[in-house]
Amino acid sequence: MDNINELDKAYITMPEGFKANGISADLKGNNALDVALIVSDVPCSVAGTYTSNLVKGHSLVRSIDVINKGNKIRGIIVNSKNANACVGQKGYDDACTIASSVSELLGCSGDEILTASTGVIGTRLPVDKIKAVLPQLVNSLSTEEQAAHNAELAMMTTDTVPKEVSAKVTLHDGRQITISGMAKGSGMIHPNLATMIGVFTTDADIDSQVLDKLIHSAVAHTFNRVSVDGDTSVCDMVIIMANGKSGIKIEENSEDYSIFDEAFTSLSNDIAQMIASDGEGATKFIEIEVFGAKDANDAKLIVTSVARSPLCKTAFFGMDANCGRIITAVGYSGATFDPDKVDLELSGLPVYKDGCAIDFDEDVAHELLTKHDINVKITLHEGDAYDRMYTCDFSYDYVKINGSYRS
Amino acid sequence: MDNINELDKAYITMPEGFKANGISADLKGNNALDVALIVSDVPCSVAGTYTSNLVKGHSLVRSIDVINKGNKIRGIIVNSKNANACVGQKGYDDACTIASSVSELLGCSGDEILTASTGVIGTRLPVDKIKAVLPQLVNSLSTEEQAAHNAELAMMTTDTVPKEVSAKVTLHDGRQITISGMAKGSGMIHPNLATMIGVFTTDADIDSQVLDKLIHSAVAHTFNRVSVDGDTSVCDMVIIMANGKSGIKIEENSEDYSIFDEAFTSLSNDIAQMIASDGEGATKFIEIEVFGAKDANDAKLIVTSVARSPLCKTAFFGMDANCGRIITAVGYSGATFDPDKVDLELSGLPVYKDGCAIDFDEDVAHELLTKHDINVKITLHEGDAYDRMYTCDFSYDYVKINGSYRS
Repeated sequence: MDNINELDKAYITMPEGFKANGISADLKGNNALDVALIVSDVPCSVAGTYTSNLVKGHSLVRSIDVINKGNKIRGIIVNSKNANACVGQKGYDDACTIASSVSELLGCSGDEILTASTGVIGTRLPVDKIKAVLPQLVNSLSTEEQAAHNAELAMMTTDTVPKEVSAKVTLHDGRQITISGMAKGSGMIHPNLATMIGVFTTDADIDSQVLDKLIHSAVAHTFNRVSVDGDTSVCDMVIIMANGKSGIKIEENSEDYSIFDEAFTSLSNDIAQMIASDGEGATKFIEIEVFGAKDANDAKLIVTSVARSPLCKTAFFGMDANCGRIITAVGYSGATFDPDKVDLELSGLPVYKDGCAIDFDEDVAHELLTKHDINVKITLHEGDAYDRMYTCDFSYDYVKINGSYRS
Repeated sequence: MDNINELDKAYITMPEGFKANGISADLKGNNALDVALIVSDVPCSVAGTYTSNLVKGHSLVRSIDVINKGNKIRGIIVNSKNANACVGQKGYDDACTIASSVSELLGCSGDEILTASTGVIGTRLPVDKIKAVLPQLVNSLSTEEQAAHNAELAMMTTDTVPKEVSAKVTLHDGRQITISGMAKGSGMIHPNLATMIGVFTTDADIDSQVLDKLIHSAVAHTFNRVSVDGDTSVCDMVIIMANGKSGIKIEENSEDYSIFDEAFTSLSNDIAQMIASDGEGATKFIEIEVFGAKDANDAKLIVTSVARSPLCKTAFFGMDANCGRIITAVGYSGATFDPDKVDLELSGLPVYKDGCAIDFDEDVAHELLTKHDINVKITLHEGDAYDRMYTCDFSYDYVKINGSYRS
């Protein structure tokens, strides 16, 4: 769409009035960045989506409480290495302490600072270490690209590449606003809801209730359609902060609302693909699509089932056109369909027709499977429902990374 | 229980009147055994449980059809290497052809021979190769232990150890019957239903309807509580054949029924544990138990969620007491509970209390995790429901085995 101009240079402070930076509080060791701060010059509307895990990290629960109060906020502080989860009331208090410290330095109220934590579960957050670096972090806040990248780097855990997007969005009357997003996420990734930490900023002026609709719309088929390992983490959140610095108001049900919705969804989709592509140990990016499912629920069951199947994912790692495993995962998905009507294509190559394996050129299949991007297209001929999931393969490195993550 | 005497020597022809053997039809290459035949001298009652996968292998569908007719049967032929699945009507016809050939050699009707196939999906069964070895296979049928072991070996795919059990069962009046069982199963293993090929024999005289009740009871918390990878195969079945050769009738609701039920369940449980222990690439046997769940459904959701979590399974491989991953899997299981009341023990060592991580000796934890058998005990304090799942860890070898299974 011509209204959306995605930028090659992407960073979270691209929209007007946002500053960021990252610093090392020595949580990870080796002077690696581990605390990120993103702040708006002026109070922002905010909306978020959160993990559906019944167990929730304390920093996340505190952020949900803050957002539910309906106040405007100034920013968010994120630490990696420690999830601040499963340590009891002290974990909630620790998150409050950190938010208070940040707010004192910024001259705002503690309830204007969101908190997010990601990493190991079950260990107290080293609050003193984090507090010790906050003055320097706040002083270093900047609109500069490198400072923004530092914030992204500080959020990352097992991620191997940063995930940042920016777009200039031209509204119906030619005026422009900017949206940026950044995320971390590589393992413990599966719907629902948002399955990673993602932060978006925009200089558009959008009321919280409208922003809430927009984020649910953007997340539904993007962040909520990524599965790395079927594990839904306890700390996940995606938020968007809108500070209105552009002076451009976006109202519900307007033409500009649709344009913003499309831009936000498109950026979310880009980050969702980056996360699947950077899944722990991944060597492949795999898109699973289902066409012609009976209804939306069946469609979702099928793409989820294939995307979390270890047998399918190891076959992709082995570049083996073992399509029986895909059909098997479709079969046990819980969806209702006639097995004798299923068609299957592997990156455009028909491999099953009417539920039967068909002869295909193994060399062609292997050639397709050596590529980094793989598409699986399942057609059921039962109805009109479509869905899609992004995932990655299952490699030796997934086992290596996760056999020794804590140490 | 004193009535059940499990035997060190275990093989499928231990009950009176059963013969078996295995042969190579050159399906696997290298002269490896790949076709198994188990036959009773006289017609048997039979009952089975089958995969819940909507896609079902043709040999399996044919067996279900035969069993549903309610006739007695004489035996079962099983081939490995080829699943006879997803090849259309020809696959069903191929299974019929093989059953007819066996029945002609045995002098019975085709409808008295069950068929089972396991292996790669989507390739026609090499019927001629199998037919060519049937005369020799039928001629070699024997009650001998080695012949019975050959049948087991011929069923195996990625299994590394045979799985055979036998027990002498003393009934209420002191008379004895015998039950034996054998199974293959290592990957693509997850409830429901029976998630592998299992064959049981007994010389007790039991009507089919009663046998049907017994097998569903035996399978429910044994074969249906094993998960290797969360993938439910299209070929799975567990059957029991009762030929009555002992002359001892077991009636429903009798004291002997309870004794038989207990013995059959106990043997099924042993094989279920063997399957989890021999899961593809497994270095650990892991029992996941939940106590105090709200109801049976919640209990099952929780043990299933932990047993299929790649993050928990790689942590066990790495012998890492990463209990946050277990709590996370409990949290996203879909069960309802208060996260602040969850207790967790790792092989008897308390690691979480009231939803909070507690200090434990990492050396003690590591020592416990170096053992082959690991127990995870989750207590919810929400009700009285209990459940249990057997699984294994996720190793480099799982990826290796499944990255190149077809080739």
